[in-house]
Amino acid sequence: MTTAKNQFKPVTDRIVDRLKSIVGDKYVIYADKEKLEVYSHDEVAEARYAHMPDVAVKPVCAEEVAAVIRLANRERIPVTPRGAGSGLSGGAVPIYGGIVLLFDRMNKIIEIDRENMMIVVEPGVVTNDINALIKEDGLFYAGYPMSLETCYIGGNVAENAGGGKAVKYGVTARYVTGLEVVTATGEILRLGGKLVKDVTGYNLIQLMVGSEGTLGIFTKITLKLMPLPKASVDLLVLFETAEQAIAIVPKIVTSAGIIPTAIEFMDQTSVQASCEYLNETIPYERAGAMLLVTVDGPGEEQVTKEYDAIGELCLQAGAIEVYVADNHTTSERIWKVRRNIAEAFKVVSPHQSLEDVVVPIAEIPEMVAGLQAISIKYDVPIPCYGHAGDGNLHATPVMNPAWKIEKWNKTLPKILTDIYKLTHKLNGMISGEHGIGHKRKEYMRLVVSDSYIEMMKAIKRSLDPNNILNPGKIFDL
Amino acid sequence: MTTAKNQFKPVTDRIVDRLKSIVGDKYVIYADKEKLEVYSHDEVAEARYAHMPDVAVKPVCAEEVAAVIRLANRERIPVTPRGAGSGLSGGAVPIYGGIVLLFDRMNKIIEIDRENMMIVVEPGVVTNDINALIKEDGLFYAGYPMSLETCYIGGNVAENAGGGKAVKYGVTARYVTGLEVVTATGEILRLGGKLVKDVTGYNLIQLMVGSEGTLGIFTKITLKLMPLPKASVDLLVLFETAEQAIAIVPKIVTSAGIIPTAIEFMDQTSVQASCEYLNETIPYERAGAMLLVTVDGPGEEQVTKEYDAIGELCLQAGAIEVYVADNHTTSERIWKVRRNIAEAFKVVSPHQSLEDVVVPIAEIPEMVAGLQAISIKYDVPIPCYGHAGDGNLHATPVMNPAWKIEKWNKTLPKILTDIYKLTHKLNGMISGEHGIGHKRKEYMRLVVSDSYIEMMKAIKRSLDPNNILNPGKIFDL
Repeated sequence: MTTAKNQFKPVTDRIVDRLKSIVGDKYVIYADKEKLEVYSHDEVAEARYAHMPDVAVKPVCAEEVAAVIRLANRERIPVTPRGAGSGLSGGAVPIYGGIVLLFDRMNKIIEIDRENMMIVVEPGVVTNDINALIKEDGLFYAGYPMSLETCYIGGNVAENAGGGKAVKYGVTARYVTGLEVVTATGEILRLGGKLVKDVTGYNLIQLMVGSEGTLGIFTKITLKLMPLPKASVDLLVLFETAEQAIAIVPKIVTSAGIIPTAIEFMDQTSVQASCEYLNETIPYERAGAMLLVTVDGPGEEQVTKEYDAIGELCLQAGAIEVYVADNHTTSERIWKVRRNIAEAFKVVSPHQSLEDVVVPIAEIPEMVAGLQAISIKYDVPIPCYGHAGDGNLHATPVMNPAWKIEKWNKTLPKILTDIYKLTHKLNGMISGEHGIGHKRKEYMRLVVSDSYIEMMKAIKRSLDPNNILNPGKIFDL
Repeated sequence: MTTAKNQFKPVTDRIVDRLKSIVGDKYVIYADKEKLEVYSHDEVAEARYAHMPDVAVKPVCAEEVAAVIRLANRERIPVTPRGAGSGLSGGAVPIYGGIVLLFDRMNKIIEIDRENMMIVVEPGVVTNDINALIKEDGLFYAGYPMSLETCYIGGNVAENAGGGKAVKYGVTARYVTGLEVVTATGEILRLGGKLVKDVTGYNLIQLMVGSEGTLGIFTKITLKLMPLPKASVDLLVLFETAEQAIAIVPKIVTSAGIIPTAIEFMDQTSVQASCEYLNETIPYERAGAMLLVTVDGPGEEQVTKEYDAIGELCLQAGAIEVYVADNHTTSERIWKVRRNIAEAFKVVSPHQSLEDVVVPIAEIPEMVAGLQAISIKYDVPIPCYGHAGDGNLHATPVMNPAWKIEKWNKTLPKILTDIYKLTHKLNGMISGEHGIGHKRKEYMRLVVSDSYIEMMKAIKRSLDPNNILNPGKIFDL
């Protein structure tokens, strides 16, 4: 870390004056610890992942972003782009200080193109607002991250956010057809457009999506929209044990031949924590675990047929009860419980590590069993929930309440190493949707080869020779 | 071109001996003009895009591929990977000679993983064979390039092939979840796996897909499979004019809220040529143009409802007739006509240029009108067909039969420039699925910025410092 830090120059008053001349005085936050503190962390619970920026800057357009980047590149100042700060891997944390680039003012819907079923937005648009805007046109954007009420679309693209509809609709990447990107040297580059297919050169869009702000800064995003499904139903399926619930997951797709919109898994601890946090009362007492299954489609009949088949399959596999939520209010109540688990756990304890492992879906039962073994081995609770239909589980080791913090800090790396080694053994990876950031970078070598990391570094060096864009994320240069 | 050529060293007898020691004597073709000739071209019609290799090599495994690449990298010999040679942009043509790498022996199905709905294959597997193998398991691979009876899956991935089902299912890229890649320095790299989501580092898989063999050589490919649709129907819709047919295309998705599997457009010239080539008799005489629309889904009722709605919409828009093909034999007859248009045109004239422009779907009518204007301006027929539902049109300027070849050779670049400028004006790109190869590289600057090309070059240099992997494709270094 010291070596990398030494690459960079400090933010001086002269630099701050230059930044003010680019974006205007009132859009530069400097020498104000209280105001800057909020930009020192994202939603990662542990304080040790935080780091203060030197200055925060709020540009209003691509030209201002480009001018900031050119200055930073010339002066060797690190730049960390930040959306709503709802990330879960420290991606928006300025670990070498420098400039935090904020997109609060770049929150315009540029165009709703109904003819092409596309929307063009700035990165600071709140993800949920997109669907609110286009619903009346019978359209929807299929991204559905659990933080959608607050997160920015720019952050979704930077992290390639997954979420609750990925089983059927895929993740953010599938919907990004065009990007305007400011490069590390401050050029404004247009990639793709309103095209549903395009092989005119390398797929630079998909290289940018999920690159965590290390290869370019997005200033405009074109998203493909879909026809709004005419029917949608949620099933809440209660099981006695986590094993029973998880065993059925791969079978829903393979035996029934149905691709549901969502298959979410929640163990009892997760549901209980979220219900208490929300003061909500969905039924969970008798259930060791539950599945939340969504089916949507263009017609009631088909959807009914599909959820009947899934309900039947679950009952045959020993489900205690199948609740059908076929109206928006009930569906939203259940999904709210699911969406708030991470928040709820933070209230339970700040000493925890929200994980994001992903394995082939058939390995989900073995993954859950392995997590339970690790929980017993270290005497640490590891509640578990997540996007089971994608093989993506948010196992969350939480400090044993009887422990002192020193023991936790010493043990957690061992727990994570065990979890990641298990994931690797099951042909999985360490992040399905939250990204590597700086929280997981030390563990990359447990799941990918050195050549893999070297290839990423080679690309990074070729596009950002001075390593100014979000340095220290994914890998150390 | 001369500068690039000078980077490379000739293939000497010593090199050939080394190649023989790697793959075995009988898998090296050298100093045999007749046998090597077949590897000097792909399916691009014009002879001037051909170039002879010095030697062709047939490795059997990743280790052999890696050994060949290490040798080539050390000795500065260009390596051009080649699948079935069914490409349409010269991607598999060894324009600087050197080694052509053949995958005929790497044609094994490594694993059909029904539990995870994944298949692992070698690059030399014929695309069509995949679906033949998994049909009984109720699964299918959604890639459907028009050359699927002959093309190799490795080529599909290298070009990010599109095809006839992309409106609903997307292109090849969507289904590639794992790759084994031999890098330009001869390392064997594993990317991804049987994971439906993964953000563990940059999306190197999607950078590799569509990179036309310039960034790495695929030796294993993991593909996501889908449940086989239980119902599928094709509509053949006849219109008096191309304008009428094309005007309805964007409306099928936007007004009806239906995502069909395919919306193919064929003008009369295209259908006629293919029918004559195949000695087939689908009805076309009265029709100036036709649409081939496929709808599939998990149930008969839903599919019927959808094709009824589409048929109704077409009739309201002035369609002459809507034929329904609800059995495999009839469907296959129609699709065969569609698949063979390119082949048929080659019989009509070898002096032609099969184009692959892609525009936002709402711009399709303007694109077709513009193509007709260009046809009149140059007095050259430009029959047109393609994947209209994706905005992807195969306009094919064919030499005016009254012309001498010199006039054609002088005029074609002007025609292409006009077509590409029109495409750019309509926010389109010059290749939707065939790739840039060396056929289109000179025209890249008409549709993308210099910075875009420089970014691709920077990535290429960082991953292939000696420029040995398929040099001279997409751009000149």
